[in-house]
Amino acid sequence: MSLKLYFSPGACSFVPHCLLQVSGLAFEPLMVKLHKGEQHGDAYKAINPRGQVPVLLDGDQVITQILAIVLYLDQKFPEQHFLPKEPVARAHAIETLAWMNNTVHPTFTHIFMPQKFSDQTEVQAALKVFNTQLYRGLLAELDALVKISLATQAWLSGDRLGPLDAYALTLTRWGTIAGIEPETYPALWAHVQKIASEQAVSQVIERERLQLNMLRPKQ
Amino acid sequence: MSLKLYFSPGACSFVPHCLLQVSGLAFEPLMVKLHKGEQHGDAYKAINPRGQVPVLLDGDQVITQILAIVLYLDQKFPEQHFLPKEPVARAHAIETLAWMNNTVHPTFTHIFMPQKFSDQTEVQAALKVFNTQLYRGLLAELDALVKISLATQAWLSGDRLGPLDAYALTLTRWGTIAGIEPETYPALWAHVQKIASEQAVSQVIERERLQLNMLRPKQ
Repeated sequence: MSLKLYFSPGACSFVPHCLLQVSGLAFEPLMVKLHKGEQHGDAYKAINPRGQVPVLLDGDQVITQILAIVLYLDQKFPEQHFLPKEPVARAHAIETLAWMNNTVHPTFTHIFMPQKFSDQTEVQAALKVFNTQLYRGLLAELDALVKISLATQAWLSGDRLGPLDAYALTLTRWGTIAGIEPETYPALWAHVQKIASEQAVSQVIERERLQLNMLRPKQ
Repeated sequence: MSLKLYFSPGACSFVPHCLLQVSGLAFEPLMVKLHKGEQHGDAYKAINPRGQVPVLLDGDQVITQILAIVLYLDQKFPEQHFLPKEPVARAHAIETLAWMNNTVHPTFTHIFMPQKFSDQTEVQAALKVFNTQLYRGLLAELDALVKISLATQAWLSGDRLGPLDAYALTLTRWGTIAGIEPETYPALWAHVQKIASEQAVSQVIERERLQLNMLRPKQ
């Protein structure tokens, strides 16, 4: 059985991409160029009809959706401790992961791809403005969560850098695309920089050719 | 340890509400009246600062988010088979649950509570129209999923009525609130009616005082 991950640079597929890289497990990263519309091509649609990343292939099995992929990998490789084992800590990690996925992530979609919610340019412009304000509030909520979590554990995901940490980096980086200064959220920004400096994560950042702060990209 | 569930009639808290009722486990259902704004009161905010339902209390432990609650209950009561045990079937069930939660559900929010995405009434009106069309497409996708799933198993969640079934009922019922005729989706609508006719589910429907089809409420 071989593991393959379809990812797109800077997309939320960064989450399982980091998980696999941090784990040291053998996997094949396969890039899908969203800006070239490869996700809408017949070849990719045959794998994921919804045309989204990430997709995990485990042999012939196709698994989509971040939460499903994270939980599948956690069940398959329990020794990796991708998520806490203790039931309540585990539930709280999944709770935060679900919130990132169903609330913070879609709020950014309103800023980055408002055409998903309206075909009128003036409505799209209004959505961008309103949802950028919402996004600031959500990053503040994430900043508070980082402070609380890191008081008792090394990483948002528990004892080990995991899916919540990788998602926090992605969401903060997206904030910079929306023009939001990450230094507004000191605890979050410090944690994101710590995550990015981990060797395995920096390898993913390099493979995806990401700039952490799009407001001040490095030359 | 006692289980309590905060729910609101017709909200997505219907999913864990059904799970607990179907299981026969002892739990205390606690109603939160969203239309009276009880979720914004100090008492409820002390439990869930985000002011959302559902909330599961297990003794002193507070767990929010449908996915976290479902997975917590599944881990605590493995004999209930809330989700499939076989890893790939399990991943696919979680995948669908995540999709319902991060895509179908928020699309309805644009129709039902467009004020969450804009403070301009004309933008809200545009969001309602555009997202109602999107919602029709998502219900068609769900209809296709029902057809495929029920070819090999009795319920969307596997061998037993579970979270995917309860969520499918909720999302279809919400469609009728959006003016969408459920009979447009014959496989989905037949399955939703079958779910509703299960004794435990009908008890939840009665407790929440729900009408399944808001286009043709029963007198």
